Amino acid sequence: MTRDATKRRERRVVTSGPRQMPFAKVTNRYPPIALLSADEIESIHHASLRLLSEIGMEVMHDESRALLKAAGASVDESTQRVRFDPAMIKEKIKTVPSSFTLQARDPAKNLKLGDGNLIFAATGGPAFAHDIERGRRAGNYQDMCDYIKVVQRLNVIHQEGGCPCEPTDLPADSRHLDFYLAAIRYTDKNWQCWALGGYRVEDAIEMLSIALGQSREELRRNPATLTIVNSNSPLRLDIPMGEGLCAMARAGQPVAMTPFTLSGAMSPVTIAGALAQQNAEALALITLSQIVAAGAPVMYGGFTSNVDMRTGAPAFGTPEYAKAQIASGQLARRYNIPFRSSNVTASNCVDVQAAYESGMSLWSTIMGGVHLIEHAAGWLEGGLTASFEKLILDAEMLQLMRSFLDPLKIDEDNLAFDAMQEVGPGGHFFGAAHTLARFDQAFYEPMLSDWRNFETWSETGAKTGTERAHLIWKDLLRTYEAPPLDPAKAEALEAYVVKRKEEIHAKS
Amino acid sequence: MTRDATKRRERRVVTSGPRQMPFAKVTNRYPPIALLSADEIESIHHASLRLLSEIGMEVMHDESRALLKAAGASVDESTQRVRFDPAMIKEKIKTVPSSFTLQARDPAKNLKLGDGNLIFAATGGPAFAHDIERGRRAGNYQDMCDYIKVVQRLNVIHQEGGCPCEPTDLPADSRHLDFYLAAIRYTDKNWQCWALGGYRVEDAIEMLSIALGQSREELRRNPATLTIVNSNSPLRLDIPMGEGLCAMARAGQPVAMTPFTLSGAMSPVTIAGALAQQNAEALALITLSQIVAAGAPVMYGGFTSNVDMRTGAPAFGTPEYAKAQIASGQLARRYNIPFRSSNVTASNCVDVQAAYESGMSLWSTIMGGVHLIEHAAGWLEGGLTASFEKLILDAEMLQLMRSFLDPLKIDEDNLAFDAMQEVGPGGHFFGAAHTLARFDQAFYEPMLSDWRNFETWSETGAKTGTERAHLIWKDLLRTYEAPPLDPAKAEALEAYVVKRKEEIHAKS
Repeated sequence: MTRDATKRRERRVVTSGPRQMPFAKVTNRYPPIALLSADEIESIHHASLRLLSEIGMEVMHDESRALLKAAGASVDESTQRVRFDPAMIKEKIKTVPSSFTLQARDPAKNLKLGDGNLIFAATGGPAFAHDIERGRRAGNYQDMCDYIKVVQRLNVIHQEGGCPCEPTDLPADSRHLDFYLAAIRYTDKNWQCWALGGYRVEDAIEMLSIALGQSREELRRNPATLTIVNSNSPLRLDIPMGEGLCAMARAGQPVAMTPFTLSGAMSPVTIAGALAQQNAEALALITLSQIVAAGAPVMYGGFTSNVDMRTGAPAFGTPEYAKAQIASGQLARRYNIPFRSSNVTASNCVDVQAAYESGMSLWSTIMGGVHLIEHAAGWLEGGLTASFEKLILDAEMLQLMRSFLDPLKIDEDNLAFDAMQEVGPGGHFFGAAHTLARFDQAFYEPMLSDWRNFETWSETGAKTGTERAHLIWKDLLRTYEAPPLDPAKAEALEAYVVKRKEEIHAKS
Repeated sequence: MTRDATKRRERRVVTSGPRQMPFAKVTNRYPPIALLSADEIESIHHASLRLLSEIGMEVMHDESRALLKAAGASVDESTQRVRFDPAMIKEKIKTVPSSFTLQARDPAKNLKLGDGNLIFAATGGPAFAHDIERGRRAGNYQDMCDYIKVVQRLNVIHQEGGCPCEPTDLPADSRHLDFYLAAIRYTDKNWQCWALGGYRVEDAIEMLSIALGQSREELRRNPATLTIVNSNSPLRLDIPMGEGLCAMARAGQPVAMTPFTLSGAMSPVTIAGALAQQNAEALALITLSQIVAAGAPVMYGGFTSNVDMRTGAPAFGTPEYAKAQIASGQLARRYNIPFRSSNVTASNCVDVQAAYESGMSLWSTIMGGVHLIEHAAGWLEGGLTASFEKLILDAEMLQLMRSFLDPLKIDEDNLAFDAMQEVGPGGHFFGAAHTLARFDQAFYEPMLSDWRNFETWSETGAKTGTERAHLIWKDLLRTYEAPPLDPAKAEALEAYVVKRKEEIHAKS
């Protein structure tokens, strides 16, 4: 980064918009919580190997099935059922890297995934956009761009999460190009691409090659995007996801293998059973990735939650979810594979339920040793909606967690004997020398929380946290400045998008 | 409990009001999170001993000072300063019991404090009452009674927390009697008494003696109330609190010794310093309790938080608070003394901030190994206000945590191989035999969370969690039934209150 660019960023952080923490690497120093014993983890491991060996996965994607067969899996072509020898799985997953680094357009925002690092990604994939002024509406290009801009402004968010809301006002088969261009243009953070079909992966890699001025081989060695591949639970890999998985692995770009195991619907009604199934599906997809390209970076994705058995509605941020995430972290560590989880809620609005379900998610995933929190900010309504106010609420909660992970300093200076001697019984510390030397950096300063007394708060409109969040995202959007992009690259990217849209629409 | 009483309770739980978990003992099986190393804990321990030895505490209560002097402390009568020999502290705290049991009027609701047990107490001490319909008002007798009734109805709350809101419409010097009578009449759970002055403690014990039909000696062996004693931080014990502490210890009733160490105001601006001061004050008060009566039950109270250094306003549920609570748990365990902490927020209304600050509090205190969560439900606005909606919000969050603490079962039946074989790839589990046998008990069922889809939620009024909480507490209050109380005891209690009011008002 040039000196000018550094200065420019510092100025932006300091002088415009609400106060917030700077962009930074986050390290989790706590030993992860263990929910299950080592024996119990082995029971789940063995149950999942038995599932893969005796029941197997239905692999609808021909190339994936052929690759698995060539690697020694037993394949029944009439049912597309693939059964995995446990020994093959154990052998293949040995090549999974325990960590990897993702490039961002601003190299100061490169991300290390794995080890003790903790990455917060914005929400990706919702169909709707929402804010409290305009309500809920179908995802559209304008909201998508605005959301990416606010994500760029929120320093606590490390990564754009794969399109905040589907731009449903654009053609379905080419809107990924509009998203990729917006992601490159409006943020200098790393962003996630779409796995749904091999051509969408290819377009992401081509555009990153232009944006970063790197060859595909350079990108293969230094990945610059990540995607989520969901199995079609139970025990099925469909064609678009199979294509996406193979394309990403061949290109050396990381994939978070994430079974969609909702206990009671797509998985057994017991969390143990759902975890066994999650583990089976994750191991199957990870095995496939290593067959495509040994050493391809992947993540172990945990998404196990449950449905409301009265209505069939999915539930998120529940006690079951919290337990499943902690257990998932234990499973991922058993294989020494970086762990992806999520910040989830089923609430339909940005209310106390959204806050406590997200709180359950964040505490359990972080204390469970997660490396990537997908949907860390903005997810509402079981993932159907990207909310602007939820984005701010979550950013505040992420700041709280990040500050919580900063270690306490216990040394003579901090133990402050002299200050207590100076102040003595019954005094106060506001004016103590020890206080005056530290007061401006002493404590976490919130972006969203209002700590003023009731009278002052009432006089200034008695605004709830959700109402304050509305003002904050608007302020961030208003004061947004696009990170500089070489005009030649911008032009080349635009030309690429035009050309590809012509190709795609000519075909359809 | 008679069979009829059992039946009556079961009927109440099952047939009226919102669905909720049954009253139950809660066990925390997780090993507590350790934030600090053993060496760092020792540094805080030694810093606090040095504080007590070199600076000392100002003890304004004559009897306490005399007792400490007789036990070997160095006392300067001109300044009321008491300096503690570290050896005396180490010796005296040896007699603190590591756990104790509190009697409730319903013996099925007796409470064990310490070991792996987790007790949730309702909020105690606020000056104001609040609900979203009537807004914030001065605490009063009617709100106090209504609040106690809702606390009685909420099964997840183990203990009344020492008066939900001050009945400011009653005379200050006798309103404790009105609270005690209401606590005995409207709930059969254990309740906390007031420590502010010895006569308030004596009245609680006399009234418990009548209510339970037990002598004071029986109550001494089997305590039936608990109170909070705050030091007047920094390093001061005032007269009313000194009186209360001595009266409780003599009567064998437990005290949670809770320094009021707000970092930056009543404590050093560093959390390490605030913890050293907290530890010093807690050890001083605990030492005093054991001098009054060796073996008196006490708790180590952690309340360290920080102020906003821009305004001086207290902040709660912050990252600093979370870290201080986890460290406090480590300190309490160092002395093998049961640990008390709190569920706190500085929010002025029942909004997302209230939810995430309480979430920070609950996760950190519970994962930090707390035994008693004071203000576990209802606390708002830095403790100035008891909110009816916050009571419901917190009860839901407590239910979530309680369910989270239930262990996952990992066995062949739960691993559900047969169910997955029955359903197979691409199917669903709604109708599987394994599901049908378990669906009605499989998952946590919320009281407050709304998991219905957006359309259904919108059609039924698009109510926020706070609005739903309002309906829930009203429903609980409407369907409240007083737990049976022997009419002779009720009469004796009323007569006691009348007599004592006459005595108190004759004096004043």
